[in-house]
Order: sequence, then C-alpha cells, then structure tokens
Amino acid sequence: MTDTFFKVEAKCPTTRARTGEMQLSHGVVKTPVFMPVGTFGTVRHVSHDDMEALGTPIILANTYHLYLRPGPKLLKQLGGFHKLTDWKKPILTDSGGFQIFSLPEQREIFKTGVRFKSYIDNSYQTLTPESVVSFQHTIGSDIMMVLDVCVPSTCSHDEAAWAMKRTHEWAERCQQAHGHRPQQKLFAICQGAVFEDLRRESAAWLCERNFDGYAIGGLAVGESKEERVHFTEFVAALLPQEKPRYLMGVGTPHDLVRSVKAGVDMFDCIIPTNHGKQGVAYTWKGKVKLRRSAHASEQIPLEEGCECPVCRRYSRAYLYQLLKSGEPTAWRLVSLHNLHFYDSLMKKIREHIEQGSFGSFAEDFLNNVPES
Amino acid sequence: MTDTFFKVEAKCPTTRARTGEMQLSHGVVKTPVFMPVGTFGTVRHVSHDDMEALGTPIILANTYHLYLRPGPKLLKQLGGFHKLTDWKKPILTDSGGFQIFSLPEQREIFKTGVRFKSYIDNSYQTLTPESVVSFQHTIGSDIMMVLDVCVPSTCSHDEAAWAMKRTHEWAERCQQAHGHRPQQKLFAICQGAVFEDLRRESAAWLCERNFDGYAIGGLAVGESKEERVHFTEFVAALLPQEKPRYLMGVGTPHDLVRSVKAGVDMFDCIIPTNHGKQGVAYTWKGKVKLRRSAHASEQIPLEEGCECPVCRRYSRAYLYQLLKSGEPTAWRLVSLHNLHFYDSLMKKIREHIEQGSFGSFAEDFLNNVPES
Repeated sequence: MTDTFFKVEAKCPTTRARTGEMQLSHGVVKTPVFMPVGTFGTVRHVSHDDMEALGTPIILANTYHLYLRPGPKLLKQLGGFHKLTDWKKPILTDSGGFQIFSLPEQREIFKTGVRFKSYIDNSYQTLTPESVVSFQHTIGSDIMMVLDVCVPSTCSHDEAAWAMKRTHEWAERCQQAHGHRPQQKLFAICQGAVFEDLRRESAAWLCERNFDGYAIGGLAVGESKEERVHFTEFVAALLPQEKPRYLMGVGTPHDLVRSVKAGVDMFDCIIPTNHGKQGVAYTWKGKVKLRRSAHASEQIPLEEGCECPVCRRYSRAYLYQLLKSGEPTAWRLVSLHNLHFYDSLMKKIREHIEQGSFGSFAEDFLNNVPES
Repeated sequence: MTDTFFKVEAKCPTTRARTGEMQLSHGVVKTPVFMPVGTFGTVRHVSHDDMEALGTPIILANTYHLYLRPGPKLLKQLGGFHKLTDWKKPILTDSGGFQIFSLPEQREIFKTGVRFKSYIDNSYQTLTPESVVSFQHTIGSDIMMVLDVCVPSTCSHDEAAWAMKRTHEWAERCQQAHGHRPQQKLFAICQGAVFEDLRRESAAWLCERNFDGYAIGGLAVGESKEERVHFTEFVAALLPQEKPRYLMGVGTPHDLVRSVKAGVDMFDCIIPTNHGKQGVAYTWKGKVKLRRSAHASEQIPLEEGCECPVCRRYSRAYLYQLLKSGEPTAWRLVSLHNLHFYDSLMKKIREHIEQGSFGSFAEDFLNNVPES
C-alpha cells in the first residue's frame, strides 16, 4: 500500500506528457524534472550554493560510490547524506546496479547479490538487495532504487530474460527489506533489454507489486537511438498512470523532450556537467563548442538573453580563455550554464503542458533546435 | 616624476611595518596587501564573484601567460584585461621575467631581450623591455613590472652581477618605453641574489630612477629560509620610505608576518590556491591537512568561528569526502577558505599596525602558530 505522494496535475491533449508533483521528505518536486548527478554527494564542478541559486529541486547520488566512501558505518555515524553534505532538498539514490554493470570484468552476480572489486582499495565488496536498501535507509534518500541486474542492449533474449527475472526477485526482496517507511519512497526498475515480450512481462510483474514509482532501466547501454526512443515509449505506456515514471541515465535535451512526450516524469544524466568540462554549452540554438578558436574573440554571452549567472556576466571569449588555460573555473561556469539550460527546458516543458501547447512546443524544439 | 598615488598612513613603533593606501586606476588598495595569483586572468579554482564576495582588492596576472594567450593582438581587439575578464578592481602584472627564468632549457637571454619557446605551440617568442611594457599597456594593468633577469639564489657573484646589470638596463628601457602614463604605475625590481653588495648597488641604482614602486625579486628561488629572511630585511631597508615595497612570489602566512615586520607592503603567492588543490587549509592554529583520514569523521568546520563561506556551511568530513572523490569543488572550497585566511591575516596586520600593537601580534603569531 502506498500513499499518494505523487499527483498528476495536467495532461497534454496530444501526447502522453503530463505534469505532476511529488511530496518528498525534503521538499516538493514538480515533474517532469531533471535531476543533476551528484555522484559522491555533490554535483560535479559546482557547489550546493550554486545549485540552490539555480533552484534545482532534487539531485541524484550514487549508492555504489557512497557505499565505497564514506561507507555505511561512517555515513551512519555522520547522520546520513543530508547531515554530511548539508544538502537540504530531496535526493534520489540509484542502487548501484548500473555502476556494477559497467565493471564487467570485476564483478560476479549470484542469486544472493553481487560481488565486486572496490576501485578504492581493490577489496571485494558484496551488495545484496537487503544491504542496498539498508544503506539507502542510512543515506536517508527521499527516493530509493531497487538493486537491479542491468545487461547491455545487445545481449541475447535468454540473457535479458535471466537478468529480468533476477531483477524481479531482487525487487521483491528490496520491498520486503524496506518495510513500511513512507518517508522514503522505493522505485522498481523495469528491465528486459530490447525485447518487447520481456519489457511487457517486467512491467506487469513489477506493477502488480505496487512500488512507489517505476523506472525504465537498461536503456542508453548500447542500443540504437531508434531502439531507445521506441522502448522508452513502449515501456512508459505499460507503467501505471498514477505513479511517477523515471527514465534512468538519459539524456540530451532532445531525449528529454521526446521522452516527456512518451509520458516520462523524471530524468538524470551526467551530460550537463560532463559537457561543462569539455566546454560544450547547450543553447536554444544548439550546442556551442567553446574550445573552437572562433570563440576566442566573441564578446557575447553563451546565449543572448540567458538569465544564468554565467551569461549575465561573462563572454565566450573569457570562457574560451579559461578553458584553454585548463582552469577548473571554466568547467564550473559552463556546467552552471548547462544546468540552468536543463532547468529552463524542464520549466518550459511544464508550462507548455499546463497550457496545452506542449505538442507543438515539442515538435518545434525537435525540428528546429540542432541536435548535434 | 611620480605622483603620490601611495601614502604611508601608520607606522609600527617597534618594527619597520607600516600601513598605507594605493590610489590605483581601478580602485583603492590598503597595504600591507596580499595579491592572489590569477595567472591567466582568474584566480585558480575560484571565480571573480567569489573574489568579490571575499572582498579581495587586487589580483596579480601573468604577463608571460597572457602574452602567449590571448596574445597582444587579440587582447587589444578585446579591449584589455578588464574588458575581457570583467574583473573590475585593480590588477598588478608581473613582467614574465620569473616565468622565463623557470624555463632554463628553453630560453636565451640577449642584450635586446629574451627568446623562449612557447609551451602552447612550441613557436619561438621574444620579449623585450619595450614589448613587455607595450603589452602591459594593452592589458591595462594598474601596476606594471619591468622585465628583469632572475637568477637562482645559488648562482655565483659574477652571474648575479651580470643579471643585475641587465635588469638595470632593461628597467631603464622599460621606463623610457612607458613614458608618462600616470594611470599605470611602473615598478622596478631589485636583483642581486644573496650578495649584499649587489643588492645595495641594485637598490641605489633603481631608487635614483624614481620608479613608482620597488619590488624585491630573486627570492624564493633556491636560497635558505634564513637567507630569504635576511635579504628581505636587508633590501626592504634600502628602499625608499615613501614608495610601496613589493616582495615577489612570497609566501606562507609566517613569511608575510616576518616580511611586514621588515617593511614590505605587497605580496603575491600561489600558496592559498595551490594548497587548496592539495587539501591543505590554513587556520590560526596551523595547517589542516584535509586528506588525512582523521578528518573523515570530523563534523566541525575547518576553523571554528571562521566567517568564510566554507566554514559557515561545510564540515571537514564533507570536504574530506569531496577531496578524496577528486571533485574540483573541493579545490574551490579549500581555496576560498585559504584566500579568506590570507585576507583576514592582512586585515589583522593592518589593524595591529594602526593600533600600535603589531610588534607583539607578530611575535605572538610567529611563536605560537605552527609553521608546518
């Protein structure tokens, strides 16, 4: 039995897009929402003060990384994530499934859980559905993810079916270990790679168990763009209307617009800060690749009219100078602009859904903003 | 003929320390002052907004680095340093002499100037006294330095004498090239390594030429701590009372206190931001080496009662977590604390000089704050 922490508010008349609101322990989050990735507790290159100034309502942290450092014992002693980091708003923590998936040579999956080698001290560590839930209790996550088995999109039907079944068993064990803690929401993860029968089976199996929300896992792991778009739409349509839908690890502004059309409510991705380090800035006219020498003399902001703290003050010429000089301040400033861009995009998406104009907004965006 | 842009305000009754004020084109700077190093136009790890919030009155930029990028032509087109970077307060630019000195394999010194290999594109570049002055005009520096020949403190008397003479010739050529531009001050650099006769000769020669200010160069380049302390005192005493005295590239908080005692008014050093990256924080109880595991669980600020934006919010445990995770935000936060510490130290020094209590403050600081 779940409480109604999530409420759908407006629905787009021409697409599956909707707005909603999540009432979480550390605050209210309006959806569709983009969650910047704060792997170790802080979004890369920027500070909590920066995120607060931008108005970011929720960040994602990595269970896997926090498990290795500071680790369960010390984090418990320190009073959990919010106490340690002084981040005051909601957090979602992934389960570690994806990180462990990305270490194929250094992990073994058992029925009980997964064993892997720590990149910090090469020690062997084990995560089980129960320990992942217990650690997310210690973290104090507003939204916890179940431990899942993620496989490449290129795997066989047999392998995908095996990973899906184990994901289901583990999801059930996570749910049991979680018990009744309404202050922390537990989301299940739909797997099944790029096989419609498996995705259908996975969605049905998990939806019966009445989780607080549902994630679409196993995308952006090797499939084609067409497959990703298709399976996002396909799986989103299988998930319950009244629960939040979270597309894990995706993506570009275009991915976000396309996936909101398909009915997705939540996103996370490292792109805004990763591109920040590379000097790639998003604008409403496409990407600006700041390392190109053409920008060395441009005394205009990244985007004319942008209200972010970077565009209000600094020129492309200055950012070029900082980037080419290897100054970490460049990474922070471009990240701030990108995070502001993502935030503005989600705000605009929510406004258009509320006003009934999202369909034409999305069409316009996807047709007219250059994707690469 | 120079105007009186510098005014000595208070003198310590028991040491050579004094307070003063410099009226510069981009603002007023109270001395003794510490100038954070903004090599390429921005202090490493932090932003101009950060520096403004700290109240930093002046930063140092590197002529050598700015000469290589953006270079004279582009910087002129961009309207100079302040226009390019949007830093609104004064800057001092060194001449490049020190940077070229630190590339012994890749430079040749001629009578006319110095030829060196660019680290950016391996092209050969030449700096002359005239081109260095002209470029500092383009930069728009509030305080410009002459091109000097810096030698290691371990060099012979002959070599030191040769370098000093060339420094003098070049200083004169810089002065001629500078002409009458009261909005930009030109400082000479006293050389002579660790030879009292040469230092005396250099100070006398330069002081006759009536520069706007005088720097002590050629220290912190291989001499012992005792030699550095001795020659700082020795040279400072040879420089005119009514002109600002600048000790280049020095130093630790203890160096600053000792040198203010000797009558030095201005300092620059990369320590606060370099230590920021290493996770070493200055406090009134000595250094805190944040990478030590003892700090992993310390839920106290870097320094109790510190008013910096880092200590007001974050714990050592959090900074430890960020540092160990390689987050650039850690470098920024520790740098901010260190810059605040340096700034507070200089403020305290000025207050004690004004109140006549600097002698006992310095004794107390040097005896009771651990140096390493």
